[in-house]
Amino acid sequence: MSLLEKLDDPEGLSSFSPAELAGLAQEIRSLIVEVVGKNGGHLSSNLGVVELSIALHRVFSSPQDAIVWDVGHQSYTHKILTGRADRFYSLRQKGGISGFPRRFESPHDAFDTGHASTSISAALGILEAKRRSGSHGKAIAVIGDGALTGGMAHEALSHAGHLGRDLIIILNDNKMSISPNVGAFSRYLSSLTTTRRYQRFRSSVDQAILSIPRFGSRFLSWVVKMKKMVKAAFFRTNFFSELGFEYAGPIDGHNLPMLIDVLSKVKCLDRPTVVHVLTRKGKGYNLAEDNPTAYHGVSPIVLRDGKLESKPAQSFTDAFSDALMAAAARDPSVVAVTAAMAKGTGLSPFQAAYPERFYDVGIAEQHAVTFAAGMASGGLKPVVAIYSTFIQRAYDQVVHDIALQGLPVVICLDRAGPVPDDGETHQGLYDISFFRPIPNLSILAPASAKEVSLMLDWALASASPVIIRYPKCAVPRELPAYASLMEIGRGIWVRPQSGNLGLIVLSMGGLVPLAEEALDELARQGILADHYHLRFLKPLDEAYLTKILSGYSAALILEEGVAMGGVGQSIQALVSQSCPALRVQMLAFPDSVQAHMSRDDLLSSVGLSPAGIAAAATSLLSSQRRFGLVKEGGA
Amino acid sequence: MSLLEKLDDPEGLSSFSPAELAGLAQEIRSLIVEVVGKNGGHLSSNLGVVELSIALHRVFSSPQDAIVWDVGHQSYTHKILTGRADRFYSLRQKGGISGFPRRFESPHDAFDTGHASTSISAALGILEAKRRSGSHGKAIAVIGDGALTGGMAHEALSHAGHLGRDLIIILNDNKMSISPNVGAFSRYLSSLTTTRRYQRFRSSVDQAILSIPRFGSRFLSWVVKMKKMVKAAFFRTNFFSELGFEYAGPIDGHNLPMLIDVLSKVKCLDRPTVVHVLTRKGKGYNLAEDNPTAYHGVSPIVLRDGKLESKPAQSFTDAFSDALMAAAARDPSVVAVTAAMAKGTGLSPFQAAYPERFYDVGIAEQHAVTFAAGMASGGLKPVVAIYSTFIQRAYDQVVHDIALQGLPVVICLDRAGPVPDDGETHQGLYDISFFRPIPNLSILAPASAKEVSLMLDWALASASPVIIRYPKCAVPRELPAYASLMEIGRGIWVRPQSGNLGLIVLSMGGLVPLAEEALDELARQGILADHYHLRFLKPLDEAYLTKILSGYSAALILEEGVAMGGVGQSIQALVSQSCPALRVQMLAFPDSVQAHMSRDDLLSSVGLSPAGIAAAATSLLSSQRRFGLVKEGGA
Repeated sequence: MSLLEKLDDPEGLSSFSPAELAGLAQEIRSLIVEVVGKNGGHLSSNLGVVELSIALHRVFSSPQDAIVWDVGHQSYTHKILTGRADRFYSLRQKGGISGFPRRFESPHDAFDTGHASTSISAALGILEAKRRSGSHGKAIAVIGDGALTGGMAHEALSHAGHLGRDLIIILNDNKMSISPNVGAFSRYLSSLTTTRRYQRFRSSVDQAILSIPRFGSRFLSWVVKMKKMVKAAFFRTNFFSELGFEYAGPIDGHNLPMLIDVLSKVKCLDRPTVVHVLTRKGKGYNLAEDNPTAYHGVSPIVLRDGKLESKPAQSFTDAFSDALMAAAARDPSVVAVTAAMAKGTGLSPFQAAYPERFYDVGIAEQHAVTFAAGMASGGLKPVVAIYSTFIQRAYDQVVHDIALQGLPVVICLDRAGPVPDDGETHQGLYDISFFRPIPNLSILAPASAKEVSLMLDWALASASPVIIRYPKCAVPRELPAYASLMEIGRGIWVRPQSGNLGLIVLSMGGLVPLAEEALDELARQGILADHYHLRFLKPLDEAYLTKILSGYSAALILEEGVAMGGVGQSIQALVSQSCPALRVQMLAFPDSVQAHMSRDDLLSSVGLSPAGIAAAATSLLSSQRRFGLVKEGGA
Repeated sequence: MSLLEKLDDPEGLSSFSPAELAGLAQEIRSLIVEVVGKNGGHLSSNLGVVELSIALHRVFSSPQDAIVWDVGHQSYTHKILTGRADRFYSLRQKGGISGFPRRFESPHDAFDTGHASTSISAALGILEAKRRSGSHGKAIAVIGDGALTGGMAHEALSHAGHLGRDLIIILNDNKMSISPNVGAFSRYLSSLTTTRRYQRFRSSVDQAILSIPRFGSRFLSWVVKMKKMVKAAFFRTNFFSELGFEYAGPIDGHNLPMLIDVLSKVKCLDRPTVVHVLTRKGKGYNLAEDNPTAYHGVSPIVLRDGKLESKPAQSFTDAFSDALMAAAARDPSVVAVTAAMAKGTGLSPFQAAYPERFYDVGIAEQHAVTFAAGMASGGLKPVVAIYSTFIQRAYDQVVHDIALQGLPVVICLDRAGPVPDDGETHQGLYDISFFRPIPNLSILAPASAKEVSLMLDWALASASPVIIRYPKCAVPRELPAYASLMEIGRGIWVRPQSGNLGLIVLSMGGLVPLAEEALDELARQGILADHYHLRFLKPLDEAYLTKILSGYSAALILEEGVAMGGVGQSIQALVSQSCPALRVQMLAFPDSVQAHMSRDDLLSSVGLSPAGIAAAATSLLSSQRRFGLVKEGGA
């Protein structure tokens, strides 16, 4: 019987001996490596916090004590320890357990996370609710040094220091966000960890400890003992203590007995406390330790030799990367900005080739966007590469600092549309709807690598801001139409017009090849339909679009995002005014939260598969015929 | 000839004697008090930075040196000094100069501002653009201690410290944001200013200064002299120096010669520098000095006795304030959260009555929202009161931390819809469109004080998040219909149905009384129309709405925001499917930026006045009749 099998819930940890705890860590590491190797997921960050997670659950009583995992991609050990070991094989699978904390999944998941820098705010709110409702328990935020570069974390630190409640912040310092950390604050954190001399506990801390009735002088004697034992642990004056926090650390995050000792004592403090823990990403899996960025989030890997799976095809990210390199070579005013996502957004080649024109601001999306706006106002051509879901963090900066001033920043939204495997918090389904209402923005959705390149060039030549959005998937085979010149507000005919004015399919971006497949299948059945790819989600050349649509009897609109407030709804509103006889149907994402599954499964679930599109087209045509008959019969 | 009349542009300041500069400050103060007294605007913050603005323009050469005013409401002296003194009487008037920096208004306005905490990012971008394009000039961010609580400013500080360029940050420390400052970071800033002993310049700073060829030892001798002269000024190790900034201060912000001296020397440094300046809000106008919050943003005031103009009528803000007090008295789990806007959002009475249940987190919208989400997850009923335009700062937090988890937070959006006088950066025209696409959110728009109360109670009883949005204007006279019980997704008939199924007007929130006026006028002309007030902008009970609409031949939809992606467009899309014969017209804001003018002027400009609505209704009815005739003729 394995140690994991002996553990029903985290309370069981209290009966484990130190040796058993160490063995448990070993079992968990093996399980994580095995499952991530099969299912994909976050490897390095999870291997780094095995001991920390065990120590937290040994010392605190979840769910009475609420543990909030910042970003949450490092919560695998937490999930394994809290009754999900047997289901851990379903990690990130459709219907299986999520790669992030999810309240609906377990009462031990205190707060849903996915985006960075939220944990301190959430934990403080949870603690305040406990206090006001008279319920016991602590609130613990576990936040990486990378997420601490996010301004929101500083807002929360300031408020938490002001309130002075017994919030516990675990600073999981691995000197990395996803890319290596940058920024002066990160450098400052490093300076804390390189000072090696001890300092006496400040007397105020001694007093606070002595005033705890349950421990009193017995606790103080422990303190003296610990001062000898824990070589690397000390309290000192620093940024956190200036804000009103007790500060303990830095502590070796892979020394389980020490972690348990320190956390046990921190649990008794009645003031906000930062515990600074040093961990090593990828700990225990050599390949990941040596290259934590590559192993941050991985597709299923070949475990035997540890080789990362080779990519099967060129992705939209790759296409953007290539297009940007070409543009940068032509125009020295092109600069690139990322918020800790150089690799994920395809900027690494640019970074290597043009280090002086490359800005990684850390996990700081707000600053990234306004910094780019400042550069644009000074005549540079900044390209901000960011995931669709993370641009939400800088929504006001896009509105207030770019759009209202009409500054020519190019924002490239990677992982737009349905995003595979990461689930609710990472979907890129909203950007079309939340950016279309903002004045001065153009929004483009390329269908192929050639279009990525055409659109980036068009955007860089534009005098106003442009957003280019593309999905996380392989680019399709090029078609001649994709090479057509860009015309503002207008799309392209993906295949030659059939001459049959029954049905027009309006598509965009990553849905274009799916629609092509569907129309190929329909053609095999003898049903001819035309296919217009919008290219521009904003602005729409409404007169041109009306002229195109007015010839048809039915239109099927495919939207790579939610229906509500999307371009499809705008077209429906337009059509209802200008072509009231046109019968319109939409395939789009509904007004509900989308859980983790593959991109294909997400698309299929709303009919956006080749088969689903073909079925919708057939159904629309047949209802159209019925509708036509009724009309004729009624005339 | 006044001193102001002698000044054509800021370069002219170099010929002014110290006595003339002092006289100029006096003239500017008088002008500001006079114009704000007539036109309304920001008084205290502008009176606080008269000397600082003069010193900046004396020392730096705008526009070659770019000055970015954080928030920008304190830029009046800057505007007066940069060629706009003669037009200053048009401040905040339609077609007149804006109350905030606007790039289209003057090349001296380096970057548009309005929201807080953006200046460091923007100035750093501007500086980077200068550096890359080889153009000379400095970039200066002027930021208040309040705006420094915004996390975005910390993101920018970290990046600026990392880059190490010669960015200059003026920390305008008046111990206030709009409400008195809160938070541990603010307390930390205070600790800097209360330490009174001098510290030697750090030797690294001395070395840096000595290495500047133009100054060398002459500059060092000035340093020694200044150390004697400037009693309150010193360089020391602190938060800013840890991030890589030189730190100078604190300096008396009303001592013009000292400001000029210090800024002149800072101008020569080649490293990022923070100049900590202490100012007094309302300086020179006693009533404002004594009560800076009340005089932060003022409506036109009676200058003779300095009395604030009494409010003519109950506002929506007042109605919310009253409704919240009633709810709080009934339910101890109701708590309130604001981001430095207790007074503006009507929370002051709650703060006074329930200090333990009130949380002002400072200018930190992101934290405010996620903190509230944390409290909601723990069973409290948080009400976040915030302006529509500022919720943009916490967009991802609403999506990621509230909506996706379905946490029952109530968000009350004040100043939704067209916002008077503040212009582009403060319009509340987008929230309907950017929140409707997000799952799990309900969005309500009350038409009267009674409805504010009904909706708040409904929201507090809801198990999922609710947004209530209302405009900055007086509530209208109550009508019996407003007291109707809330039914999810459904609106109310504002006036009894006429029995005439020609036209239905669909309205919302602050537009309901305008539509009532229009329909009264039409009734006087013998034209009867019905009036349905949506109440719910989301969700819509689509079946119910379809049933209502299907009887009519025309519908006029009034949207208190932009048309694109709004509820009107959703209804148009719905109608095009379910009632294709219904002729629909919308009155809403177009896809363009709205400048500063009164609320009435903003509304009228898009036809959303009683006369405009009546005209649209008449026109729709007549085209409907023509449409009907054509159809009949064709049948």
